[in-house]
Amino acid sequence: MAEKTFRVVGTSVTRKDAPLKARGEALYADDIRLPLMLHARVKRADVGHARILRIDTSKAEALPGVKAVVVGEEAPIPYGIVPQMPTEYALAYKKVRYHGEPVAAVAAVDPDTAEKALDLIEVEYEPLPVYTDPKEAMAPDAVKIHEESPFPANIAYQAEQEFGDVDRAFAESHYVLEKTFRTSYVNHAFLEPHSAVAKFDTNGELTIWSGTQVPHYLHRTLSKVLEMPMQKIHVKVPKVGGGFGGKGEVSNNELIAALLARKAGRPVKLTYSRKEVFLQHRGRHPIEIRMKIGVDRDGYIQALEYDGTMDGGAYGGWGVVILFYTAAMLHLPYKVKNVRFRGRRVYTNKPTCGAMRGLGGVQPRFAMESLLDQIAIDLGMSPYEIKKKNAIDQTHETVSGVYVRHSEYKQCIDKVVENSGYLEKHRKLPFGRGVGLAGGYYISGTAYTLYMSYKPHSTATVRVDTEAGVTVYCGATDIGQGSDMVLGMMAAEKLGLPFDQIHVVSGDTTLAPFDLGSFASRVTVAAGTAVCQACDRVLEKIFSVAAVQLGCRAQQLAVADGEIYSVFEPHKKRMGFWEAVERYIDANGPLVASGEFTPPRRTGKFKGANIGHSPTYGFTAQVAEVEVDTETGEIRVVNYWEAGDCGQAINPQSVEGQVEGSIVMGMGQALFEQVRVAEDGRLLNPNLHDYKVPTAADLPQIRTHIVDSYDPDSPFGAKESGEGPIQPVIPAILNAIYDAIGVRFTEMPVTPEKVLEALERRKSERS
Amino acid sequence: MAEKTFRVVGTSVTRKDAPLKARGEALYADDIRLPLMLHARVKRADVGHARILRIDTSKAEALPGVKAVVVGEEAPIPYGIVPQMPTEYALAYKKVRYHGEPVAAVAAVDPDTAEKALDLIEVEYEPLPVYTDPKEAMAPDAVKIHEESPFPANIAYQAEQEFGDVDRAFAESHYVLEKTFRTSYVNHAFLEPHSAVAKFDTNGELTIWSGTQVPHYLHRTLSKVLEMPMQKIHVKVPKVGGGFGGKGEVSNNELIAALLARKAGRPVKLTYSRKEVFLQHRGRHPIEIRMKIGVDRDGYIQALEYDGTMDGGAYGGWGVVILFYTAAMLHLPYKVKNVRFRGRRVYTNKPTCGAMRGLGGVQPRFAMESLLDQIAIDLGMSPYEIKKKNAIDQTHETVSGVYVRHSEYKQCIDKVVENSGYLEKHRKLPFGRGVGLAGGYYISGTAYTLYMSYKPHSTATVRVDTEAGVTVYCGATDIGQGSDMVLGMMAAEKLGLPFDQIHVVSGDTTLAPFDLGSFASRVTVAAGTAVCQACDRVLEKIFSVAAVQLGCRAQQLAVADGEIYSVFEPHKKRMGFWEAVERYIDANGPLVASGEFTPPRRTGKFKGANIGHSPTYGFTAQVAEVEVDTETGEIRVVNYWEAGDCGQAINPQSVEGQVEGSIVMGMGQALFEQVRVAEDGRLLNPNLHDYKVPTAADLPQIRTHIVDSYDPDSPFGAKESGEGPIQPVIPAILNAIYDAIGVRFTEMPVTPEKVLEALERRKSERS
Repeated sequence: MAEKTFRVVGTSVTRKDAPLKARGEALYADDIRLPLMLHARVKRADVGHARILRIDTSKAEALPGVKAVVVGEEAPIPYGIVPQMPTEYALAYKKVRYHGEPVAAVAAVDPDTAEKALDLIEVEYEPLPVYTDPKEAMAPDAVKIHEESPFPANIAYQAEQEFGDVDRAFAESHYVLEKTFRTSYVNHAFLEPHSAVAKFDTNGELTIWSGTQVPHYLHRTLSKVLEMPMQKIHVKVPKVGGGFGGKGEVSNNELIAALLARKAGRPVKLTYSRKEVFLQHRGRHPIEIRMKIGVDRDGYIQALEYDGTMDGGAYGGWGVVILFYTAAMLHLPYKVKNVRFRGRRVYTNKPTCGAMRGLGGVQPRFAMESLLDQIAIDLGMSPYEIKKKNAIDQTHETVSGVYVRHSEYKQCIDKVVENSGYLEKHRKLPFGRGVGLAGGYYISGTAYTLYMSYKPHSTATVRVDTEAGVTVYCGATDIGQGSDMVLGMMAAEKLGLPFDQIHVVSGDTTLAPFDLGSFASRVTVAAGTAVCQACDRVLEKIFSVAAVQLGCRAQQLAVADGEIYSVFEPHKKRMGFWEAVERYIDANGPLVASGEFTPPRRTGKFKGANIGHSPTYGFTAQVAEVEVDTETGEIRVVNYWEAGDCGQAINPQSVEGQVEGSIVMGMGQALFEQVRVAEDGRLLNPNLHDYKVPTAADLPQIRTHIVDSYDPDSPFGAKESGEGPIQPVIPAILNAIYDAIGVRFTEMPVTPEKVLEALERRKSERS
Repeated sequence: MAEKTFRVVGTSVTRKDAPLKARGEALYADDIRLPLMLHARVKRADVGHARILRIDTSKAEALPGVKAVVVGEEAPIPYGIVPQMPTEYALAYKKVRYHGEPVAAVAAVDPDTAEKALDLIEVEYEPLPVYTDPKEAMAPDAVKIHEESPFPANIAYQAEQEFGDVDRAFAESHYVLEKTFRTSYVNHAFLEPHSAVAKFDTNGELTIWSGTQVPHYLHRTLSKVLEMPMQKIHVKVPKVGGGFGGKGEVSNNELIAALLARKAGRPVKLTYSRKEVFLQHRGRHPIEIRMKIGVDRDGYIQALEYDGTMDGGAYGGWGVVILFYTAAMLHLPYKVKNVRFRGRRVYTNKPTCGAMRGLGGVQPRFAMESLLDQIAIDLGMSPYEIKKKNAIDQTHETVSGVYVRHSEYKQCIDKVVENSGYLEKHRKLPFGRGVGLAGGYYISGTAYTLYMSYKPHSTATVRVDTEAGVTVYCGATDIGQGSDMVLGMMAAEKLGLPFDQIHVVSGDTTLAPFDLGSFASRVTVAAGTAVCQACDRVLEKIFSVAAVQLGCRAQQLAVADGEIYSVFEPHKKRMGFWEAVERYIDANGPLVASGEFTPPRRTGKFKGANIGHSPTYGFTAQVAEVEVDTETGEIRVVNYWEAGDCGQAINPQSVEGQVEGSIVMGMGQALFEQVRVAEDGRLLNPNLHDYKVPTAADLPQIRTHIVDSYDPDSPFGAKESGEGPIQPVIPAILNAIYDAIGVRFTEMPVTPEKVLEALERRKSERS
């Protein structure tokens, strides 16, 4: 383990944006008001699947106050995360594929006029059958939702992979358990709805402010759809009120605002209502998973088989990536020698699913952690034992070629079991009360260069100036997760300066260099490496000047607390950091350097590994303690313990925040959340009154623990903490419910009705 | 002369900001509205010179809606361009030195409330004698306006220098003429009044938006006066509606806005009224000049003597710099072997004089070009002949050690005389009509590092990206003069790209590196050199990659029209610019490089040369044709010709704009403008109704001509055109008046009253 005496890293400094947000000083996209700005509203389809025969916007255009109306025909270029398979349009083009899809949009002098104009737009449809269930959509005679799709039967993409000899391993297994799991259709429910303000200046340059996780991908997509050179487009990201993956791709409102602004010749704001947030969706894929695990007499896993059908909704989104994430990461954090993966993503006439915190992991982890729990119980051993036995070691290479260079997963399991008293509680608590254990992990620093082929994935430029201080120009975007803080702390640590002397300029495609985006828990490792490299190069320059001044070799210099010193003669040879900077600038001009990061490419056996490799992984183990009210069926999570391996925590308070947020979000999916869809494709609960997310009243006591960990190949030893911690939440809670009432739920959410029904059934089975 | 085949340079591209300004899309400081922003108003002294005995702000503070009141005692740290001689305060501190000086300021929820609060502030003064005339102020028994000043008798600074043997040269001269000239007290009359918005965020960081020419000097001064680290201050310059030197130093409104914002804990805007613009002033120094010139029989200048008393007003401002500018540049553009300079700047109880377009040159040029005109006529030769004979050659070193590396002044004189038909008109037009010839020059790229000792004077960082295009981060500020355009054109030319692919980020102390400021016609040469150097370094990087690809040495590569090619095999070895950029970034990360400029230091004999040397100079010659209405005394400038040596014109249309603007501004000073001051120090005409500036109706037909010129040591051969062209305007017009009616005016403005009076006097003298 490398030396870990840090001055800034590892401390819980206050984020610069926290007080601004607390006091309402922070500006979000919807706070932006530009002179002459118009307000846009979207006309949405009232059919779930149809051909568009005619759109008549003339009456809307004639309404006083309306300045522009656009329809899909005006932006017929499809786009998508995978450039070879573009499926999406700014507005429905020729076809409507889900109930509520944008078919036209209006910009007017005020929101009411825009709203009124929507009613004046006439759309004539030729209805097509509506598929809300992947099974129906996959029927051989089903109408194709995407006619141009190369796969049959509304399959968007499918994959099949096998490593080892799975059938033989099952045959030789001592015990095999197979179950089918169904996960639910859930939305991120971030606080800030999608909002974008687009403005064309008289020179034809477009500036767009949007709360996006992916300004550079938006940049590229605007260029494609609007048929404009990228160099004339400037994407600026104000504060973002949560994304969780839902703002990790282009949202229609961004394209529509830009199209309307160009047509009207005036700035246009388009902020979605909560209902529209649900329609834009990109939430978690419901998957029907058939999973089979075979173990030997001692509980060591022999084989794993997965068959999953993902309900993708109407468009591509991040779907194919998630299919491959699932395939690549299926069996971790356990050692599995024989694996079979079969998966498919299916188009249905529903709002599109996409990336949501922990994507690719949450559903298979639910299945696997539930199955292992049951197998252990069936074999008469503790779930702790089976998980510990199968847990990967500090380094591990999966049978599929995924290489984990550093894991403290075993430490996580031990620690959480110890802290929670799991062994003293499991199967020993009174009926109605139980504990559940589950583990998880997530990638860190990965990126799939789907929309970019060549560039470094993350870059940063650092300027050090005696007057302005340190400016870190960084492509990575702070979406509320605190990356500006993390990157600023890293720069402060590297340069031996206090955190408040660092200014991070991020989320601006013109001011800062390229970054793939803030998703897949990649920023701390990827952008962090770029910032560290840039700082190292800055130090190289400063040290070259200081070395002359101090009369020693530059290689023996170090920096801390604003002083540069020789590591061999620290008291004799030292000088002020800013004095050295001043000398450098006086002689050479601006003190600027850049750094970059691209994950190492591994040519593994696994197809998944070829489309992007994660340099490192975070791990977590969790214990939930629940109380089931057998009268009402109500489940209450009363206690929650987590032990996480996020590498070195850059800011422990921030790690705790990520862990707590993940637990609450996972709990919502386990117990409360479900987007409900009518047969015609209408959403039945697209609002935060009927779509239940956990509130403060629902929260358990959460105890997090950051295990001792340090990945020597990561910046300051850091890994991830934003998505791993959501992986075990559902199975931990559902395993606890099993422990409490002996019912193994394989579907979410576990509502009081389902509990009562199961208790009823259990009673009748026993009697 | 270097090769001059340019693609962008030398063309009249449209400035990116021009259409934005024409359509009202451009934002100035006063357009900024921040949530919870307060409005400030300033309580000003109603005495011209007094000690402040007491300020009672309690009633103002008690007025509902008032959120903060500040007085001078709260910011007692003096500042100034010369850090060793700080004289200025944010608000009057202990003393009031001019009528209308800020003594207190109020921030309130609306302007009316702030205004009302001013009346509730009670100030008790102990009056002191008010000096509005330097002669009175210099009286031995005069009360000192600045008690701590080291010079006697209200002299702010004085200097005396002699080169050659002046007395002997006068004694040996064939003809000696001496006259006294008086220049007037004029204001820049820029369109946009001073405006600043200051905001402290919850972290205590200050952001200030201000239409300043010197964001970095403001940055430094805010740090000093507010006693805050510079790294917590961000200066941002929105569009600027003209500065002409008047925004070339810190204005009280900037400091007051910041002080009030800190005290109130809310953003504060302080925009000055036109009257307050006149009180903030910093306009041209009135100078009483006694000038003597001796010539030989052929009209060659033998000796020059200058004695000047500058009326400085109440504070230091740029005064001492202007004194030295005047001394250093006195005799150019003529060859003078023997020179004596005696000058002093005197404090008076009036708004402070400072830098105004052409500072240091306009007043002595008026005297010298008038004297030479008269001497020629007295000797019976053409003013053209005497000026041509004495004009400096293509390179020249003055007796005082000022080195001119490139001049086309002779070409300017020849061209303007030819174009105007001067020789055919002078002394040959009917009474009441006349022509006048005058020449001038100005420094270019100079800077006095008065407020900075060590840094490069101008810096730039250039980033080239396949997506964002080219971003030029530049410390230099576009104050309406078009520097963003000029620097963008240079980058485009260097990189072989179209102008519209270049984005210039300027005027932001956090986003862009250091620059001294936009003054003294330094930006094109200084910042231009920095941008060119940065581009050269970017090209070096790109060429290193292209050379490998093309199989040739990087040194033989060039770039044009988006293609990189070998200069030896241009058809065989070539590749796309952006392809090479892509390859570079793919392999190395961000493509970023910086450049800088510091003028060469010459250790001349002259004291002036030691405080900053101009690397190069622009030249101009002008002919005015006037018509004098002998009935009304009204003077009409009917035709105007100019021939200018600005080196290579980067954008000819922009050069023409600078020349035309200079001529109109000079004409205003010659004929209309004069700030009038009452005996108690009150301004009598501080508004654009009573203070007359030329309007479109007053304009002559102006014909400009850019002479063939190229300074091989400057970026693209460019020099200056922003301040040289104002130098000859006053003497050209006054020489023409002499030619028209035989009256030699030595005072400005030449109003109809003065003309009638002179004609009367002339008539009575003749009769």
